[in-house]
Amino acid sequence: MGRVTTRRRITVIDVTAAQSRERSDTLSVEEPLELRLGGEPLTVTMRTPGHDIELIHGFLHSEGVIRSAEDVSMARYCEGAVTSSETGFDENTYNVINVDLAPGVAPPAASATRNFLTSSSCGVCGKASIEQLRTQTTYDVRADPVRIAASTMVGFPAALRTRQRSFEQTGGLHAAGLFTSDGEVLVVREDVGRHNAVDKVIGWALLERRLPLTGCVLMVSSRASFELAQKAVMAGIPCLAAVSAPSSLAVDSAEDAGMTLVGFLRGDRLNAYAGPERITLD
Amino acid sequence: MGRVTTRRRITVIDVTAAQSRERSDTLSVEEPLELRLGGEPLTVTMRTPGHDIELIHGFLHSEGVIRSAEDVSMARYCEGAVTSSETGFDENTYNVINVDLAPGVAPPAASATRNFLTSSSCGVCGKASIEQLRTQTTYDVRADPVRIAASTMVGFPAALRTRQRSFEQTGGLHAAGLFTSDGEVLVVREDVGRHNAVDKVIGWALLERRLPLTGCVLMVSSRASFELAQKAVMAGIPCLAAVSAPSSLAVDSAEDAGMTLVGFLRGDRLNAYAGPERITLD
Repeated sequence: MGRVTTRRRITVIDVTAAQSRERSDTLSVEEPLELRLGGEPLTVTMRTPGHDIELIHGFLHSEGVIRSAEDVSMARYCEGAVTSSETGFDENTYNVINVDLAPGVAPPAASATRNFLTSSSCGVCGKASIEQLRTQTTYDVRADPVRIAASTMVGFPAALRTRQRSFEQTGGLHAAGLFTSDGEVLVVREDVGRHNAVDKVIGWALLERRLPLTGCVLMVSSRASFELAQKAVMAGIPCLAAVSAPSSLAVDSAEDAGMTLVGFLRGDRLNAYAGPERITLD
Repeated sequence: MGRVTTRRRITVIDVTAAQSRERSDTLSVEEPLELRLGGEPLTVTMRTPGHDIELIHGFLHSEGVIRSAEDVSMARYCEGAVTSSETGFDENTYNVINVDLAPGVAPPAASATRNFLTSSSCGVCGKASIEQLRTQTTYDVRADPVRIAASTMVGFPAALRTRQRSFEQTGGLHAAGLFTSDGEVLVVREDVGRHNAVDKVIGWALLERRLPLTGCVLMVSSRASFELAQKAVMAGIPCLAAVSAPSSLAVDSAEDAGMTLVGFLRGDRLNAYAGPERITLD
């Protein structure tokens, strides 16, 4: 794809040196991705191009539409989805993906579409209550007996950072990574949206037939919001760890589902906001 | 409101000291806010409670539904919007607001509702093109002759931080502030969502009859995305400044509208990604 970053001329101003100069800079690419279900537009998300097929699988899984890779019979970029205003010809922008669900897999009901759209992967949520999250979850996260050594966990941020190729260049991308309890990195994905980075990771796991993600830790380079906790629980992940602070509703969701929630995972320390019994100190 | 932060018991684990202890911690509150238009649900956003009336005004302005305070005839919390599952009684959760538009103000068309919902204040955007942003804008940002001294601008982050009461406690809130070109702070608002913090600021300005925000700088504690650039242009703001990196589409939008876009405003330096002519070095 090669569109994760792009170069631009910028002006760097240094007040102390009273100096202004132009130089080239690397930016994170942000472009709209339209998801169509059976040809009908469902949602649009602003995302960093790349791993789009994983992204839409992860999104559909987090929203409870699909449960396995087999629930999607076809997913591909729409050729001719957009007519160029300059040339008048149809073009493939690689920003529109059509998904056909497998026979027997119900699309979101028309009456639910309204809410469904607002609950897209972005911090806006049509499901107004934690109760609805619990109802949707297929996997029993609370029953996951995994234990993770705190000494292993404090190594996650550095492991994530070394695999974040684009962040070093732009300083503008969120990352999400999946770790085993032994500290092995399974996958790392980046995006301008933290929700998209998580959807790409979960979509990868779904396509690899690894759901539920029993015994795994999902690590994010950002804060932990309700939406991220929701996505983790939906994928059967017993532990969500964030570099920064969690919100009150992320903590409530984690406690409600029996998921361990770690925040401020920095240096040699971490805070357990829910499920501290899974973190061991040996 | 008193719901910006909340206290919880957490477990702090220190690997080097091989020590685990419980203490109380302050969290940013995240709760859903449902916006109804004439009694009909329009969208739900996850936000930090407080300044909700500003938030919904800013949101409706950014989406092009209203242009002035007079376009809203009534906005208030719905009493009895939710029936308590515990008591069976109706209760006012202060999480549902109903807005009645003034006579002659068109609600989003039914056909546009689908896209409207996905373009809510959250990084998901139903308006797939920069062209649509330009069409919607009422104000000519490009014509704004304001000049801002770089030496003034480098003071903005500290000014923002000192007015961010909740961040110090939680480390988990985004802030947005409005500054004059002389460096005066007009307003600062906080939220778990950076889009909400900006909507609160713009809603405040709208209710204060200050639109368009000619000569002003909008400063955000986060990165600069397409959505934030869009909101700033809609409010007639000639300069958007961010502590962190902008995305490619934020830069494209700024250039397209003639708005100055500053990123990595830190220490005594800043990067101008668009419209550098407004930043002076004297």
